[in-house]
Amino acid sequence: MKFSSKIEKCSLSPMRKFVPFADEAESRGIHIYHLNIGQPDIATPPIYFDTLRKFSLPVLAYAPSNGLPEMLDAVRKYYAGFGVSLERGDILIGNGGSEALQMLLACILDEGDEIVIPEPFYPNYQTMTLLTGAHIRPISTCPEEGYRYAIRERVEACINERTRAIMITNPGNPTGAVLTPDELKLMLDIAREHGLFIICDEVYREFTYQGEPLLSALQYEGYEENVVVIDSVSKRFSACGARIGMLISRNKDLMAHALKWCQTRLSSTMADQLASATLYEVGPEYFDALRAEYRKRKDRMVRKLQQIPGVICDDPKGAFYVMAALPVEDAEDFQRWMLTEFNDQGETVMFACGAPFYATPGKGRNEVRMAYVLEAEQLDRAMDILAIALEKYQNR
Amino acid sequence: MKFSSKIEKCSLSPMRKFVPFADEAESRGIHIYHLNIGQPDIATPPIYFDTLRKFSLPVLAYAPSNGLPEMLDAVRKYYAGFGVSLERGDILIGNGGSEALQMLLACILDEGDEIVIPEPFYPNYQTMTLLTGAHIRPISTCPEEGYRYAIRERVEACINERTRAIMITNPGNPTGAVLTPDELKLMLDIAREHGLFIICDEVYREFTYQGEPLLSALQYEGYEENVVVIDSVSKRFSACGARIGMLISRNKDLMAHALKWCQTRLSSTMADQLASATLYEVGPEYFDALRAEYRKRKDRMVRKLQQIPGVICDDPKGAFYVMAALPVEDAEDFQRWMLTEFNDQGETVMFACGAPFYATPGKGRNEVRMAYVLEAEQLDRAMDILAIALEKYQNR
Repeated sequence: MKFSSKIEKCSLSPMRKFVPFADEAESRGIHIYHLNIGQPDIATPPIYFDTLRKFSLPVLAYAPSNGLPEMLDAVRKYYAGFGVSLERGDILIGNGGSEALQMLLACILDEGDEIVIPEPFYPNYQTMTLLTGAHIRPISTCPEEGYRYAIRERVEACINERTRAIMITNPGNPTGAVLTPDELKLMLDIAREHGLFIICDEVYREFTYQGEPLLSALQYEGYEENVVVIDSVSKRFSACGARIGMLISRNKDLMAHALKWCQTRLSSTMADQLASATLYEVGPEYFDALRAEYRKRKDRMVRKLQQIPGVICDDPKGAFYVMAALPVEDAEDFQRWMLTEFNDQGETVMFACGAPFYATPGKGRNEVRMAYVLEAEQLDRAMDILAIALEKYQNR
Repeated sequence: MKFSSKIEKCSLSPMRKFVPFADEAESRGIHIYHLNIGQPDIATPPIYFDTLRKFSLPVLAYAPSNGLPEMLDAVRKYYAGFGVSLERGDILIGNGGSEALQMLLACILDEGDEIVIPEPFYPNYQTMTLLTGAHIRPISTCPEEGYRYAIRERVEACINERTRAIMITNPGNPTGAVLTPDELKLMLDIAREHGLFIICDEVYREFTYQGEPLLSALQYEGYEENVVVIDSVSKRFSACGARIGMLISRNKDLMAHALKWCQTRLSSTMADQLASATLYEVGPEYFDALRAEYRKRKDRMVRKLQQIPGVICDDPKGAFYVMAALPVEDAEDFQRWMLTEFNDQGETVMFACGAPFYATPGKGRNEVRMAYVLEAEQLDRAMDILAIALEKYQNR
């Protein structure tokens, strides 16, 4: 049987590659600190479950294809809170930010087209792009420069006649980099000058640690045709399992095309849209507490990490990841060793290896991404284990 | 801005084309009998809502990408009930049967490939196929033959070197045709002989009216590499808004490829998978009552329809649609007239026009699909209105 050339080019999630080794280690009684996936441990606001408790209908019908009015209006009110006025027609609700991105890429990418993305990037961007027949043209960055990418010459060098869009994650996964207002403006300007979409994945918008404002590309005027924002309730409200995300744009042609995708899969779920809409009722104190907690974790983790000889790691400004270069040649080999041959008092650590975050072959091999989704004391211990492991691994 | 050639080829849902006319008629106080969409009016089993009422977690995390074990096992148990033994790995849970189909087509279709489908077919197949860059090669049928398509010469005439799969809906939407066991075996044989996938959309499996058994392509042995089944809780349990469907196949390579899609969009929703799993606890009396109700509706509707001069309409054997040829040249013009210029005592009828169910240009223009998703008395009245409208339209 023949499979599509597109799916043949895709890989299984690199984040799950070491799961069999982890399972085996756990079956030997080893405790693993899981820093490999971005699954927050923060409690989901109880109002989500309260809403489901009251949910009852005679017939559980399809929701409208573009999204339930309650959900659309919750999103509009949230954006209005920082000065962004949206119409219902500017928003399409998807099954997670992931589906929002799938429908967007289906609308703009053809076989052989290119999308410019700073690397390292969220690895699922790779699969989603390959499934359209297009490919990623990466903007190079490096840990020594704090993964900075908003540099006109560097971005423009990646643009050619097959380029359809520039995509950025702001705040960044995996780097934690946050664009300054001027840097974001520069990226928008480049997109507009070259007639490109600029796709801003802003799912980590509230996760900033240096007093940055709630920066959204939608706050800039004059880029209505170019700007597309991907958003989601997953990280913001620790509600990953709700699978509710959104595609937001004022480009009417784009939204008309994307609605075709929405209609072809009929609708997103009724219950999760209703419950997710009420998540937006949590007040600013929820986000203040969230930021304070993550800032504490980040500070503890980065301090510890920077004390380990040979580790290169910038202080991330947002999201909940640290990208670090380790003093090893191949992080995958080191990870395998940590899960199969090493433990410190019956404990070890799991991270995401760096290479799959890059489109350029060979890059990121000595890098890792760690999610600070555990409590500070556990992160302390995890970093101590990492330091011990690195020393043993280097001297083995 | 440039959009993909694939999305440019797609259309908005033909089922929604006349919605603005309907809205306008309703604003004039006209009552419309909506036979245009397949949204059942049957009550959703209360256990769905009972499950949500008890659902609470500290953190609403991602579900496993392939599906929640509870949901996978509910599907396995349901299939075991009619002798089909499935492993968890034979099933992937999607956001509705729609996403199951999207992931499948992404795995098997390349730019320029073909998929053989009897026409008339469910119009969303068209959009989904076009989004992969492939196109539909239709097997011709006609109302005079009861839309029969399982004829070796006719199917094989559609197969060429670019064919990747044959797709059937059984029982059929929009025709209500149900394959006999021999006809299904013939379709499976043809697929196997030509090294093709045979995709069986079986979401209407319980909706049969002449004592047919619960026929599934998975019940036939020796076609493990070829058979792919699309299934869903939507119609079966009147739970369209749950958006839970499944891709089922014993072809290990296919399932490994499809898992890449599943991982790239992380998971289906947690709450709806849990609640949908419990839907499978309803007993056979639920389906018996369902079948009895729909059979009554169908009988009433078909009897009335067949009395209308010039209408050609076979007695459908399954699903909950009637496809009929009307004594008009253009059903779209007739529909527009019925919504804008006609009413009988303040009432009119809405159906789905036939042309979008065909890939062949010009076919189905005088046909309509009507869903018997209203109570029998309302269907009686709707058919009386249709008869009056046809007479007036012909003599206008």
